[in-house]
Amino acid sequence: KDFVAKANTKKYPTAVLYGVFQADAGWFDQDQGSRSDYGPISSGADIRRFRLGAKGQITEHTNYAMQVDFGFFGRPTIQDLYVEQTDVPIFGNVRVGQWKQPFSLEVVSSFRYTTFMERSVLFQAFTPFRHLGVGFYDWTDDLNMTYAASVFAAGQDQYAGSMSLSGGYASAERITYLPMWECDGHEYVHLGLGHYFSTPNNHVTNLRTLPEAFIGTNPASTGTSGQGVSGSQNGTPFFVSTGNIYIDCFNVIGTEFLWVNHRWSLQSETMVNFVSTRDHAADAVFSQTNQGTAILPGTYAQLGYFLTDDYRPYDRKAGAIDRIIPKHSMAFCNGNCCSPGWGAWEVAARFSYLDLNANNATNVRGGNITDYTLGLNWYTTPYTKLVFNYVHSVSDPGTAPIGTPPYILNTNRANTNIFMTRMQVDF
Amino acid sequence: KDFVAKANTKKYPTAVLYGVFQADAGWFDQDQGSRSDYGPISSGADIRRFRLGAKGQITEHTNYAMQVDFGFFGRPTIQDLYVEQTDVPIFGNVRVGQWKQPFSLEVVSSFRYTTFMERSVLFQAFTPFRHLGVGFYDWTDDLNMTYAASVFAAGQDQYAGSMSLSGGYASAERITYLPMWECDGHEYVHLGLGHYFSTPNNHVTNLRTLPEAFIGTNPASTGTSGQGVSGSQNGTPFFVSTGNIYIDCFNVIGTEFLWVNHRWSLQSETMVNFVSTRDHAADAVFSQTNQGTAILPGTYAQLGYFLTDDYRPYDRKAGAIDRIIPKHSMAFCNGNCCSPGWGAWEVAARFSYLDLNANNATNVRGGNITDYTLGLNWYTTPYTKLVFNYVHSVSDPGTAPIGTPPYILNTNRANTNIFMTRMQVDF
Amino acid sequence: KDFVAKANTKKYPTAVLYGVFQADAGWFDQDQGSRSDYGPISSGADIRRFRLGAKGQITEHTNYAMQVDFGFFGRPTIQDLYVEQTDVPIFGNVRVGQWKQPFSLEVVSSFRYTTFMERSVLFQAFTPFRHLGVGFYDWTDDLNMTYAASVFAAGQDQYAGSMSLSGGYASAERITYLPMWECDGHEYVHLGLGHYFSTPNNHVTNLRTLPEAFIGTNPASTGTSGQGVSGSQNGTPFFVSTGNIYIDCFNVIGTEFLWVNHRWSLQSETMVNFVSTRDHAADAVFSQTNQGTAILPGTYAQLGYFLTDDYRPYDRKAGAIDRIIPKHSMAFCNGNCCSPGWGAWEVAARFSYLDLNANNATNVRGGNITDYTLGLNWYTTPYTKLVFNYVHSVSDPGTAPIGTPPYILNTNRANTNIFMTRMQVDF
Repeated sequence: KDFVAKANTKKYPTAVLYGVFQADAGWFDQDQGSRSDYGPISSGADIRRFRLGAKGQITEHTNYAMQVDFGFFGRPTIQDLYVEQTDVPIFGNVRVGQWKQPFSLEVVSSFRYTTFMERSVLFQAFTPFRHLGVGFYDWTDDLNMTYAASVFAAGQDQYAGSMSLSGGYASAERITYLPMWECDGHEYVHLGLGHYFSTPNNHVTNLRTLPEAFIGTNPASTGTSGQGVSGSQNGTPFFVSTGNIYIDCFNVIGTEFLWVNHRWSLQSETMVNFVSTRDHAADAVFSQTNQGTAILPGTYAQLGYFLTDDYRPYDRKAGAIDRIIPKHSMAFCNGNCCSPGWGAWEVAARFSYLDLNANNATNVRGGNITDYTLGLNWYTTPYTKLVFNYVHSVSDPGTAPIGTPPYILNTNRANTNIFMTRMQVDF
Repeated sequence: KDFVAKANTKKYPTAVLYGVFQADAGWFDQDQGSRSDYGPISSGADIRRFRLGAKGQITEHTNYAMQVDFGFFGRPTIQDLYVEQTDVPIFGNVRVGQWKQPFSLEVVSSFRYTTFMERSVLFQAFTPFRHLGVGFYDWTDDLNMTYAASVFAAGQDQYAGSMSLSGGYASAERITYLPMWECDGHEYVHLGLGHYFSTPNNHVTNLRTLPEAFIGTNPASTGTSGQGVSGSQNGTPFFVSTGNIYIDCFNVIGTEFLWVNHRWSLQSETMVNFVSTRDHAADAVFSQTNQGTAILPGTYAQLGYFLTDDYRPYDRKAGAIDRIIPKHSMAFCNGNCCSPGWGAWEVAARFSYLDLNANNATNVRGGNITDYTLGLNWYTTPYTKLVFNYVHSVSDPGTAPIGTPPYILNTNRANTNIFMTRMQVDF
Repeated sequence: KDFVAKANTKKYPTAVLYGVFQADAGWFDQDQGSRSDYGPISSGADIRRFRLGAKGQITEHTNYAMQVDFGFFGRPTIQDLYVEQTDVPIFGNVRVGQWKQPFSLEVVSSFRYTTFMERSVLFQAFTPFRHLGVGFYDWTDDLNMTYAASVFAAGQDQYAGSMSLSGGYASAERITYLPMWECDGHEYVHLGLGHYFSTPNNHVTNLRTLPEAFIGTNPASTGTSGQGVSGSQNGTPFFVSTGNIYIDCFNVIGTEFLWVNHRWSLQSETMVNFVSTRDHAADAVFSQTNQGTAILPGTYAQLGYFLTDDYRPYDRKAGAIDRIIPKHSMAFCNGNCCSPGWGAWEVAARFSYLDLNANNATNVRGGNITDYTLGLNWYTTPYTKLVFNYVHSVSDPGTAPIGTPPYILNTNRANTNIFMTRMQVDF
C-alpha cells in the first residue's frame, strides 16, 4: 500500500527519449548558367538531421520538450525547447520557449511527414520557423478549427540560439478550418490563413532560399548555414537571395489549402511578403535600398497519389499533417508463414515559385526561382521511409550590380537538375 | 523463474534521463559611465541553460552522472561527468571525473534551487566550479557535518574540456556544520568553511565577473564565454576583470552562513583571495604585475521571505540547498472540483560586493563592483519556476592605463540597471 | 484486455539510452629529438570520450543506433548513426548510415573492450573507421565465419559529418574465420582478412598517426583533431604524417590474428597500403608526389595475461572482441558478511610499427614510428575499468625538405616516453 502511494507520488515528472535521423545523398547536374552563377556544386552524401531529445510531463497539465540536432551545420542546433501549460482559461494552451512559430502548413507539420525531402522555396525565405518566445494555441470543441498566436525574438545565431540586437522582435498568427471531414479522416479539406510580422535585429534582413535541396557542396560558399563554420565544408549555395537589406519591418500573409481524398492529396500555399525598406547607401555589407514597399510573392502546389491503399492523416488539434501509417509494413518471410508486406508507396509532383525582385524603386533584387519536383516515397514502416526526389530548378539569382534598373537581372539563367535520395528513421 | 533470475542479473547498470532548461529575457538601462565603460548593451532573450544527461548505477555502490549543456556559448559544454564509489573505507565516497569542486555554498547548491537568477559576483571570480579531478566527500553519522576535498586540473577550454598547460593544477576543501536543526528541517543554521588553491596554466589567470546577469548582447566584446565563438554573438561583458595577470598561485578562503526559519532565509558568504603575483613586463597580453601578494575581498548577503507557507529545504549529505517543493502546486480548475493552488511565492533581496583592486605595489587593478538585487520567485510546481530579478549594479572597471597609481582608477563609475525574467523547467 | 492490446501495439519503436565516458591523464618525457620534432608537449588531463545515444528497434527486424560524442575535439562528433534490416534474403543484415566500416579486428571491436588505452599506430593511418554508407554483414549458421562489405563516402569534416568533394568514395570488405573454438569460448583462434579501397575527396589524402596517446597538449599544433578548432587547445601532435599528398586512390590489405587460451591472449594485425600517387608540383599545401605506387607497411603484436581467473570473450556474430566480465567484481565489505572481490586484473605488452616512407620515386616520406607499450588493466566491474599504460615511442617524422632524396630523412630521431592512466565507465 505504501509502495503504491509512493509510486503515485513519483508519477511526475516523466521523461521519454525521442529522436530521428536522415541520411541523404544528392547528385547535381548544372548547365553553363548554373555553373556561372553558383560555381560547381559537388555531389555528395551527408547526415541531414540527427536529433535526440526528451519530452514528458511535469504535472497533468504541464508538458515539456527538449530536442537538439547534431547533423546540421551549426551543430549542435537547438530544436524544440519549451514548456507549456494546458487547460489554461481563455488561452487554452500557453507555451514558453522555442518552437515552430504558427505560420504555414508545411512548416507547422513535422518534416518527418512531409511529402518531399525538403519544404518548398517559400519556407526559408518567408516563414519564421523556430524562435524563442511566448504564445498560445487552442482548438474548437468540434475540432474543426484551430488558432494560435505568439510573439518572439526575431534573430538567431547558427546554433539556433536567440540573438537579439536592438530589440529585434516578431509575431505570428494562424487560423485553420476544416470545411469537410468524412470517412474517419480519409476525406477532408483544410483551409488556413496566417500572418507573420518581423522587425529584424538592427533592421537588417536577408530573404533567401536553397533550391529545395541541402546536400551538395560548394567550398567557396558559406552555403546552407548562412554563416561560416570554421573548418567545415558547407552545403548547397542559396539560389536566390536579396543580400542584407535595410528595412523597417516586413509582413507576410499566407494561405493554406489541403484536400485529401483517400489515396489522393492536393496541397498548396501562397504567400506575399510586404517589405518596408529604408534608404541605405551602398556599402560592402548591405544591398542598397530606397524607402518604399517591396511586394514579393511565392507559391507552391503539389499533388500526391498512394500506389498502395494508404492515405495522408491529419492532426485536428495542431492543424497539421500527421504520420503516415502503412496498412502493411514491409516484412520478409524467411520460411515463416507470415504475410509479406511492401509498405506504403506514394508518387508526387510539386511546382514551386518564388520572386524576390521588387519591380519598383526599392531596389530589392533577390532574383527568382521556379522548381519542378517529382517524388517517390516508400514508407517501409510507420517509423522508416525511403525517399527519391528529382528537382529541376530554373533560377535567376538577383546579383545584378547596384545601379542597374532593378527589374532587369543581367545574370545568367541557371538550370540545375538534382537527384536526391534519403533514408529516414524516427522513434 | 528463469525470467526473474535474468531480470535480477540485468539489474545493473541503470540509466535515467535527466535535464533542465531556462529561457531568459533581460532589459538593460545604462548611464553615461556604463555606456562608456562597456559600450551599449542590447536587451535580449536567450536560452540560458539547456541540459540533457544520463545518471544511474553501475553496481549498488557505484554511481555515475553524464550531462551536457547545449545553451551556453561554448556549446556543447561538458557538465557533470563522473563516476563515484560509495561506502569506501576511510574516504566515504570517492569520485573521479568532472563535477563542481567543493567550495562555496551557492556553488555546491544546484542553480535550480538558488534564490536569484545568477549566483553572486564571487562565483565567477573566486570559485573553481567544475573541473576534471579526483576527490572524496563524506558526512558524520548524525548528518550534522560534511567534509570534502579534491585535486583537479586547473584550466578549461570553452567546452569545459580540461586544458592543462605546464601542468596547471588546483585543489579545494570544504567542511560544513549544522549547529541547529529543528522542526524537521524547517529551522536550521548552516556554517561552512572552504579553501581553494590554484596554480593556473602557464601561471596566468584572469579574475573577473559579470554583473549577475548573462543575457544582454555586446557585439564588440567576447562576453560571457571569455573566448570568441566564431559567427556567434556573445552576451553581457565582464564588468570587472584583472586582465591576464602573471602569478605563482592563489589561495581563496571562504566562509558560509545560512539561517533558515520557516518562511525566512538569510544567507551570506565572504571570500578573500590571496594572489601571489610575479614580476612581468607590460605587453599586449598580460597586465603588468610586480612580485607580491594581492589581497582581494568579496562578500554577499541575501534575505528571502516566502509569501506562502513554504520554506527552503537542505540536503544534509551534500551540505547544500535542496529543491523547494510548494505546499500547493499551481492548478487550474476548469469546472472540476479540484482545489486550486498558486504555487510558492518568495521575495528576496541581495547585496554583493567584489574588489579586484590590490592597494599595493602588485599592480593588480581589476576594478570593483557593488550589486543590489531584488527578486520575486514563483515556484509553480516543484519542477518549474518563474523568476523576476532587478539588479542595480555600480561598478568601476579596472582598465586604468598601466603606469598610473594602482589604487586610483581613472575610468568612469558605471551605473547599470538590469531587469530580467526566467522560465525554468527540470526533470 | 484493451490495455494489454494497446500495450502490445505500442511495443515498437523501442529506445534505450546508452553511453560511456573516459577520463584520462598523461605525462610526457621527451628527449632532445622529440622536443625538436614536435615541440614541448605538456602533460595533462582530459575527457577522452563522452558519449550519449539511443538504440532500439523499429520492428522485430529493424534496429537503429544513434550516438554522439561530446569529449573529442570536433564536438559534437557523430558516432554510430544507422538503421539496419535483419533477416534480409541473400545479404543477411543490410545497414544504412554511419558506422565503423568492416576492416581490422581492433577497429571493429569496441574501444571499450580493447586491451590498451589507444588502438595501434595502424588505426589512424590505414583504416576507414566510421563513414556514411551502405553495407551488409552476415555469419554462417555454425557461427565460425562472418563476412561484411560496404561502400561509403570517403571524406569527413571535424564533426564526423560526411564531406564529399569531387565524389570521393570508398569501399571495405572483411571476412573472418574461427579454426578453433573450445571450452565454451575460453579457447579460440580468430583469423581475418580485409581490404579497404578509397578514392579520397579531390584526390588528396594525408596518412598519419598519433603515438598511441591522445592526451598531451601542444598549443602550436592542430593536434588530434587534424583541424583547428577555434579557441580550443589541441592534443598530442601527429608523430608521423605524409602531409597532403596527391593520389589516384589507395588499397589497404590487412590480416588479423587472435589466439585466446583462458588467461592468455595473443593478437596481431599486419597491413600494407598500396598508394597510387599522381604527379604534383610542390606548393604550400601539397607534398610533392610523382606518379607511381608507394607501398607502406605496418604491423602490431600484443600479448595479454590475466592475473585473475578471467579471459577475453569473443562475439561470434560480429567477429570482434567482446566485453570482459570479471568473475568477481570489486566490492567493499563494510561490516557486512559479503565476499569481497578485486575485479579482473590483466597485464599486457604491445609492439607496433608503421612506415610511411616509400623507398621509391613517389616521394612519399611520412616517416616511421615504433612503439613499445606496457599495460595494466583493472576491470573493477563489467562496466568500469582503470587502465595504466606506459608507451616508449621511437619515431622519425617525415618532414624532410622537398627535393632531398626521399629515402633519407634528415630529421632527428625522437624518443618519447608517455605514461597514461584512464578511468572508464559505460552503461
